[in-house]
Amino acid sequence: MSAVADYLHQNEDRLLSELQELLRIPSVSTLPERKEDVRRAAQWLQRRLTAAGCTTAEVQETGGHPIVYGEWLGAPGKPTILVYGHYDVQPVDPLHEWKRPPFEPVVEDGKIWARGASDDKGQVILHVNALEAHLKANGTCPVNVKLLIEGEEEVGSDHLEPYIEKNKARLAADAVVVSDTAFFAKGVPSICHALRGLAYFQIDVRGTDTDLHSGTFGGSVMNPAFALVHLLAQLKDKKGKVLVPGFYDKVRKLSKAERKAFASLPHSDRKWAKAIGAPELFGEAGFTTLERIWARPTLEINGIWGGFQGEGAKTVIPAEAHAKISTRLVPDQTPKEIARKVETYLKKIAPKAVKVTVRELHGGEAWLADTDHPALQAASRAVKRAFGKSPVFQREGGSIPVIAAFGRILKIPSVLMGVGLNDDNLHAPNEKMDLEQFLRGNAAAAYLMEELGGREEPAHVPRMRRKTA
Amino acid sequence: MSAVADYLHQNEDRLLSELQELLRIPSVSTLPERKEDVRRAAQWLQRRLTAAGCTTAEVQETGGHPIVYGEWLGAPGKPTILVYGHYDVQPVDPLHEWKRPPFEPVVEDGKIWARGASDDKGQVILHVNALEAHLKANGTCPVNVKLLIEGEEEVGSDHLEPYIEKNKARLAADAVVVSDTAFFAKGVPSICHALRGLAYFQIDVRGTDTDLHSGTFGGSVMNPAFALVHLLAQLKDKKGKVLVPGFYDKVRKLSKAERKAFASLPHSDRKWAKAIGAPELFGEAGFTTLERIWARPTLEINGIWGGFQGEGAKTVIPAEAHAKISTRLVPDQTPKEIARKVETYLKKIAPKAVKVTVRELHGGEAWLADTDHPALQAASRAVKRAFGKSPVFQREGGSIPVIAAFGRILKIPSVLMGVGLNDDNLHAPNEKMDLEQFLRGNAAAAYLMEELGGREEPAHVPRMRRKTA
Repeated sequence: MSAVADYLHQNEDRLLSELQELLRIPSVSTLPERKEDVRRAAQWLQRRLTAAGCTTAEVQETGGHPIVYGEWLGAPGKPTILVYGHYDVQPVDPLHEWKRPPFEPVVEDGKIWARGASDDKGQVILHVNALEAHLKANGTCPVNVKLLIEGEEEVGSDHLEPYIEKNKARLAADAVVVSDTAFFAKGVPSICHALRGLAYFQIDVRGTDTDLHSGTFGGSVMNPAFALVHLLAQLKDKKGKVLVPGFYDKVRKLSKAERKAFASLPHSDRKWAKAIGAPELFGEAGFTTLERIWARPTLEINGIWGGFQGEGAKTVIPAEAHAKISTRLVPDQTPKEIARKVETYLKKIAPKAVKVTVRELHGGEAWLADTDHPALQAASRAVKRAFGKSPVFQREGGSIPVIAAFGRILKIPSVLMGVGLNDDNLHAPNEKMDLEQFLRGNAAAAYLMEELGGREEPAHVPRMRRKTA
Repeated sequence: MSAVADYLHQNEDRLLSELQELLRIPSVSTLPERKEDVRRAAQWLQRRLTAAGCTTAEVQETGGHPIVYGEWLGAPGKPTILVYGHYDVQPVDPLHEWKRPPFEPVVEDGKIWARGASDDKGQVILHVNALEAHLKANGTCPVNVKLLIEGEEEVGSDHLEPYIEKNKARLAADAVVVSDTAFFAKGVPSICHALRGLAYFQIDVRGTDTDLHSGTFGGSVMNPAFALVHLLAQLKDKKGKVLVPGFYDKVRKLSKAERKAFASLPHSDRKWAKAIGAPELFGEAGFTTLERIWARPTLEINGIWGGFQGEGAKTVIPAEAHAKISTRLVPDQTPKEIARKVETYLKKIAPKAVKVTVRELHGGEAWLADTDHPALQAASRAVKRAFGKSPVFQREGGSIPVIAAFGRILKIPSVLMGVGLNDDNLHAPNEKMDLEQFLRGNAAAAYLMEELGGREEPAHVPRMRRKTA
């Protein structure tokens, strides 16, 4: 066992207990009342970076939630990596579906249960632990390390791009390293080379000044909930096809080779449905499940509400009704173009007997990288050393909008080496991180530093040619 | 001024302040946590009936919320009326839209503002005040009076019919008198001779075990909120036509004379839309607003919910989505038949990739009476004496399911002499009762007793031929 691997092994309990400390902070970025908790998480990370050996560790103001920046630059002449991650988390509702309190992390059944365990506190911390292991075990690190950990990933990363633009020189690096994705399956390690983009909207429908008695008025006015239902039904048909005109225009088609590669992966529709408790799977005709999730855009209702939601019966026509919807995008769709198309279409089909407004809440671009790039190959070797098996290259249906931004602004490639699992319950009740994934993940992050900084590799990782806008 | 009118005039302030006492009790029958408040309202009424001169006043258990029964039978040989009303009220959400706390009644701008002010505490009490006025001013009353005041009208009156069945003999009377409807407009008094029926449902759609990340899973599973939206869109089309097969089969057509009578009423679409703040009116093609509300059935969404409803963006596919819907029915539709049709249709169109359940929450039959019936004519004279103007006969879009039951079980006619106004905000925030309507309403109730018991009238009100099932 190498000195670094040995160090990580010796310090397992402490590293785990430190992660639990971070998970205890309810840093829900979308909730105004959690603002101070978000800041506490940033301050905790600042202390942790210093303890790990960073020579600089700062909490930086952004106008929104702060960004944590740290660096260790003690290996001149060696490549520099920029670790990116986020310390903010999703809300926890519906709270009653959690089996354990979301911010009281416990280790049970070989898993760490808490909001943020996998997304992304438990993953961004892997690289901090890896840096510490190199510095404490060997007195140095094979690469220079910069860390950029934001607190607004779950609310659209509004202040991140301006920050990167403003700090271009300070953030200069040879590659971005991110752990915020999942293995294809437990025992099937993977490197992610593609992400979907996102455009997220709120639709508000207002009918009358107040709720109306559904007997006295029913039949004479347009019900805003019904107007909303008809609008939404015109966005996606019963077969799963999005009806927004031009929605599929720019979608890049999968090659035969890509479809074949997808099909060769050990995926089972039956197991996929069983894992999430779905009666059966469902999606766009003519595509497999992996194609639907990885390479096809979609449109979902994320929330809907209006009128009476209590027990029993209340006979009202609601004054207003609302929905949150989002599209997931693939190359070469852009959030800007899709947002325009969705808004134009909704405006066109909105009835006049109610007032319909559409607001875009946030968006992010899709991303797609070459699997034979040296940085992705280095990550592949690191994962093989830590998990004992060569990873497959896979895509991911989720979105990390900043990945495209790193390429555009810093002109550097990204390596997405996530170690989550698909049953981690991201954005849902009972989020967890598998303990084995966490421990081997620490090693994979340490090995990645060796693979990127090692003598057999070129001193600088070559630029990655970005494939998408 | 008669002794009775004089008594009511002298006691205005006290009668008003007593109503306010009753309005202060938050007797929301649909909320389990209000159970004791509902009982308090019943007990308050029991004391009030005794004070008014009832020789019997009881709070009677039903298995649900209690029924208040009172009687004064000191006029042997005279007709007997059975006053029916309810002391339970609707929930108050959305609470933030109330300008004054819903259970802290205040008199402002010539109106009494509180939940229940018009529906129905402020109306049922008119008949109690009228009985008191006769007894205190004249030592007797022109008719025998029985009062049946329930606490479950807003939740379907589940225990009322069994109670009536069981107490047939005790409740025997010549006519039922109810004040739970509204004038055609302020200054346009009216007597109501028709009500719509009701069938109310909850639809629950369940997809997966928990909410899912809309990126990781979006495109591969059916979104329960989308499934619900497509189900609801198939219940009523964009033009307001209900799509449930057979829904309109039994609808009794309006005669030319009825349509002409409706058209002669001082109704203005523009004013109707303005009063409720609707951008424009909307409804079934080929019918006027009054026809749509009074003589055509409809189907409305009363509530809808699922997924994320907070501020900002949460990228989930909800695990479940729900809707409350209700149909308003007209002769000769029956709630039982419509419920079966709605449930059969929903079951037929429900997709297999989610689990759909439909529950009927409650129902009630439509009702239609002859306008030339002596009891309705007596009410017409009473209203003219109190308000200075002959009332028009009108229908009402709302439902009082028990009216049909009185006819069926007790074989007696009903007189619907409501004095509410259409802008009373029933079932909505800022419910109120117009002060003038309340004060003249007390007189109208007292005059009705005279008109029904008077020498010019037959001692017993003849049976009314029920027109509907």
